[in-house]
Order: sequence, then C-alpha cells, then structure tokens
Amino acid sequence: MNWNLTEADIDRITLGAGVLGTGGGGNPWLGALMAKAQLAEGRRLRVIGLEDLAPDAQVMALAGIGAPTVGVERMVEGSESARLIRVMEQHLGHRIDALIADEIGGSNAIAPMIAAARLGLPVVDADGMGRAFPEVQMTTFFINGHVAHPSGLTDFEGNTLIVTEARSPEMLERLLRAGTVAMGSAAYFTTAPMTGAFVRRHAVPGTLRLAHRIGDAVLAARAAKDDPVAAICGAMGASVLLRGKVTDVERRTEGGFLRAVLTLGGLDADRGRTVRLTVQNEYLAAWEDGRPLALTPDLICMVDSETGRPIGSEEVRYGLRVALLTAPAHPHLKTEAAKRVVGPEAFGLRAP
Amino acid sequence: MNWNLTEADIDRITLGAGVLGTGGGGNPWLGALMAKAQLAEGRRLRVIGLEDLAPDAQVMALAGIGAPTVGVERMVEGSESARLIRVMEQHLGHRIDALIADEIGGSNAIAPMIAAARLGLPVVDADGMGRAFPEVQMTTFFINGHVAHPSGLTDFEGNTLIVTEARSPEMLERLLRAGTVAMGSAAYFTTAPMTGAFVRRHAVPGTLRLAHRIGDAVLAARAAKDDPVAAICGAMGASVLLRGKVTDVERRTEGGFLRAVLTLGGLDADRGRTVRLTVQNEYLAAWEDGRPLALTPDLICMVDSETGRPIGSEEVRYGLRVALLTAPAHPHLKTEAAKRVVGPEAFGLRAP
Repeated sequence: MNWNLTEADIDRITLGAGVLGTGGGGNPWLGALMAKAQLAEGRRLRVIGLEDLAPDAQVMALAGIGAPTVGVERMVEGSESARLIRVMEQHLGHRIDALIADEIGGSNAIAPMIAAARLGLPVVDADGMGRAFPEVQMTTFFINGHVAHPSGLTDFEGNTLIVTEARSPEMLERLLRAGTVAMGSAAYFTTAPMTGAFVRRHAVPGTLRLAHRIGDAVLAARAAKDDPVAAICGAMGASVLLRGKVTDVERRTEGGFLRAVLTLGGLDADRGRTVRLTVQNEYLAAWEDGRPLALTPDLICMVDSETGRPIGSEEVRYGLRVALLTAPAHPHLKTEAAKRVVGPEAFGLRAP
Repeated sequence: MNWNLTEADIDRITLGAGVLGTGGGGNPWLGALMAKAQLAEGRRLRVIGLEDLAPDAQVMALAGIGAPTVGVERMVEGSESARLIRVMEQHLGHRIDALIADEIGGSNAIAPMIAAARLGLPVVDADGMGRAFPEVQMTTFFINGHVAHPSGLTDFEGNTLIVTEARSPEMLERLLRAGTVAMGSAAYFTTAPMTGAFVRRHAVPGTLRLAHRIGDAVLAARAAKDDPVAAICGAMGASVLLRGKVTDVERRTEGGFLRAVLTLGGLDADRGRTVRLTVQNEYLAAWEDGRPLALTPDLICMVDSETGRPIGSEEVRYGLRVALLTAPAHPHLKTEAAKRVVGPEAFGLRAP
C-alpha cells in the first residue's frame, strides 16, 4: 500500500480519529489544519501498510502529550515534532525510516504525519492503541516489552529533553508527564525506535483506514440525510449505549490530565435513564445505576446525536445532545498483559 | 595548588559547608560518609585552584537537587553522579577535565568530589554560589550568561534524562525540578560544560578552603573549650543576629522544595526578642518586628549555640538552642545582574 492522502482523506481521517479518540487524543480539527497546511506547502502525506515495513526498519512512535484543555489553546507551528525526530536521530546515531501513531485517537492520528511530511518519511497504517489512552505506557508496544528509552519530549518553544534511561514504562510516563507540566501541559513525545518486525507483530493494524472509513460513513450519511450515528456504528462495529443530553459536568485539570465525571440524561426512547462517565482525558467507563455499561479497554465514544461530530472530553458542556457509543477493543488490548496496563483495575475505576 | 584531601580535611570541609549551606545544600554528614568511603576504596579526592584551570579546560558543575527532607532518607551509593558525567560526555562527544561544585553549601560541597574521585578528575576550589540557593539558575554561572543546555539529571535508581534545549535557565530549573519530583524528590544534576576561562572569571573562589577554615575553627574552639560560635564568626567574617531557641516550626514540602517559617525566641542577652526566618530550602530572610535583619544574597546561618554544629532547615525542631549568624555574600552575588536572580525580589520575600 502506498497511499498519498488528499484533503478529502484528511477530513475523513480527522472525523474518524475524533470518534476513535474516546474523548481524548487531542483536538482533531487542529491536526487537520496542520495536515492540510503540509499539503498546501507541497509536501506529501504518505501512508504505508504494516506489510510494507522491512523487518529491520527503524520505526518511531510520536504523539502529543498533555491535557486536551491546554492543547487546544496553544499555537502549533508544526515543525517542533519534526525537529524532535532529528534530535533523537542525532542522539541515536542512526536515521528513522518511518513514523507511527502512538494512538490513533484525535489529533494524534495526524501528529506523526506532520513530522513525517516535513522529514519525507511515510507513516504506518497502524497505531499502538487502536483508540486513545491517557498514559504513555498504555500502548501495545510497551505492553509487549518495548524498551522505555531513549525517549524525547519537546514543546512549542523548543524546550527539549531526552530520557536516556527510564527503569520502566511507568517511570517514563512520570518523567514525560512531569516535563510536560513544566512545559505548560502541552508537548510532543517520541518513544525509542522499534524494528519493523516488532511493529508488524504488536501494532493495532489498519487504524488509519478504519478512521477514514468512519469519517466517510459520517459524511455520506449527512449527505444522504441518514442518521450519522447509525453510520458510525456500522463503520466501526459499535452499538449505542444511550441517546440523551449532558446534564452535569464536573471537570478539573490535575497533574497534566483532564479528570471529570460527566452525567448524561436519556431522551426519547432513553428518557428516565442516567449514565455517568469517568474521564481521565478519555472516557474510561460508563455507569448506570452503579453498574458498568462499558469499561476500558473497550471504546466509549461520544458524538453529537444530530451530526455525528465526535465530542472531546474538554468540550463537553451542559445541554449538549449526544449519542454514547461503545465498541470492542482490538484483541491486542484484551490479553492478560494488556489488562494489567489498560484494564479497569489499572485505572482504579469505581462507580462515581 | 594540588590538594589531596584527608579524612581530617573532609571533617572540616563538611562542618564548614554545613555552615555555608545557610540551612540547605543537602545533609553534609551523608556527603562526608560518601567521601570517606572513596578514600577507603583507595581513590583520591584531589582539589585544584582556579588558577590551575587551563582556559580551554572543560569544567562541569554538579549538585544534588531536591527537598533536603527527602535527600536525607534516600540511600546513596555514590556512583550515580559519576555515571551521569559519563552519559553527558557521551552525549557531548568529548571528555570533561574537572568538576566544580554548583554550590558549596551542605553535601553539595562534597557531591562533585565523589563523582570526580570515581572518574579520576580533580575538583576546583570554587563554586557557583559561595553558599547554597534553592534553584538551579541561581549560580554566578547562569547569572553571567552560561548556556542552559545540555544538562543532565539522574536518580539513585538510574533513571536519567538530558535537557537538550532549555530556552532559559529558569526553564531549565522548571524541567529539572519537575524531573526531580517525578524521580521522588532527590536526584543529581549537571549543567553544560564551561570553559576554564569562564569559570576563572565567574566562580566564587576559594570556597573549599573557606569551608575548611570554618570547620577547623569550630574543632579548635571545641578542643580549647572556647565558644565555637565566635570561632565561626571569626573564620567567615560573620556576626551574630540572635542567640536563642526555636519556638515555632511551620514546614512543608511542596513542588520539590522545603518551605518553612521558623520562629526563634531570644535567650540571655537577647531575651524578649523574636526573630522569624523565611525558608525555601535555605534561610533566605531573617525578620524582627516585621523589618529585615538580614536578606538574601547575604548568608543567614544557624548553628547549635553550644557546639557550633550547623543546623539544616530540614532538622530544625522546637526547643533547639541556636545562634543565628549572618555574613556578607561574595561581590559576584551583589552585581545588578545577580540581584535580579538571587536578591529579595527574586524570591518575592515579605515579612511573615
């Protein structure tokens, strides 16, 4: 596969990545603006398949890190992530052959494309989550033993650090998170390079295509005056948990994360039902009458019930009319090893 | 000058560095243990004078960073700081010729010696403060334009990061402090290498000799049953602000710093007087009746009134009988540029 993205592709991927972001992953519309700016400057946004990766290819994962409430408000010029890759190459003493999304959710579907376009590299149609998760160690890469260093972190002013040794992926998360907070709660990070063979074995495959398919379904449904919510469900194998409106928002930014408890009240067929969501950047659990309706690692997505527009955890507000969806996580996130890192216990989830 | 320290020298430097630590700089007794362990293992603790530095020598400053309350409780094996220098050399692509104390206060007088002994390097009889200060940017090196990167940070478990770009010394402080907190509030850092010419021009000279002279005066006074407080004053040009006891301690660890307000009540000739101290790791200001008795950058030191033993801000407790001393800071800390970084306004000091 050698897929050069068009503006139309970016629109679809952005929409789909917003849905797959499960509330987090960074504002996707900003990512779309940045990606289109790359095309306008004559650069290519080239996607290759997992099957195109040579076993010894050097692949680096890249993502934004920070609280989404902050990310939205920061100016992004787009060159900082490319510079970070160059700094890492210099530190490593070798070149990188391809980039991959750490998470397909939100702007993090696009983030590696911006850097890759500037560096003339392809991005791989895959990612380390098949969705978004709030913490650095929560990827199929780390779950399957990827080394925690060297990892790089940079902000929009050029402040940059390299973690040359982290004793565990959790320690890497602590160091990168602390650096991100010091940088003003918005930054880009990259983890250590992986071989093509490792990525082919452990990445969640085809997630750029999946995001594109979801976005395409939404746009087609809108054009045909069909229900975009049903279109999303069809495109990603999701089901509707509730249609209703937001009746309460309890939200704070703490330690570099957005944390919240959201309450949705059912409308129409769902009138009288109340669903509460536990949020750490992402929608991690949906509860009804104190019992879980859906739990991480399965996807919980919120979209505008009229338009299918994905709604990030930072923009949820009282009165929004929404559909709450769930879809099963990829089998890579359902292993015993994965459960310890991204399962409900890993987050200490309890009914709010 | 080529001075190979003996155990007796270490005892004297430790005592004197404790006094010069103005309450901070890390527990000096731990540093002494580590230094003596180096001698026991057959290594040399070699001190050279500023005048021995070649203009193009590569000199690196090294110090512990963190809240002193935490540092005391962490096991220190002594090799982590040497390893940090090696990591930095590898990143820089060249060797380091000598180490220097970032601050002469407390265990930070000794910290570079431990690394230097393991690496076979000399330490310079000078430092960047002539005392201790709580923040990374508060050295005569940064005050005089030293570049903020690359700087390294490591903890006792081997977690290590390199700040490859910091847009200002203040940003470097933020990044290193955040990393330190993530590492458990105790770590070592090193700043970018300096040339011998730069160090000769801007370091506070002769501070290891000064610490030795203070320690020697205390031990001589104890042996002769003289007043050790008077001996300290003579050795460092200090005067007594108050003799009394600690009547109140309000202390917390916050953001990687120990912050406190301490109250001392006068005894004997000072009966009826009350002096309050503002603390951020170090004793930064002494107040009486709402007016400053002594202010940063001048040194404010607390010692046991019977033995002359220096008392760190982490060990001050109700009922301790102490002498509070002050001495003028080195002229390098009294320039206009220095005032902006280490003067009372830089700390936002107000009477408590």
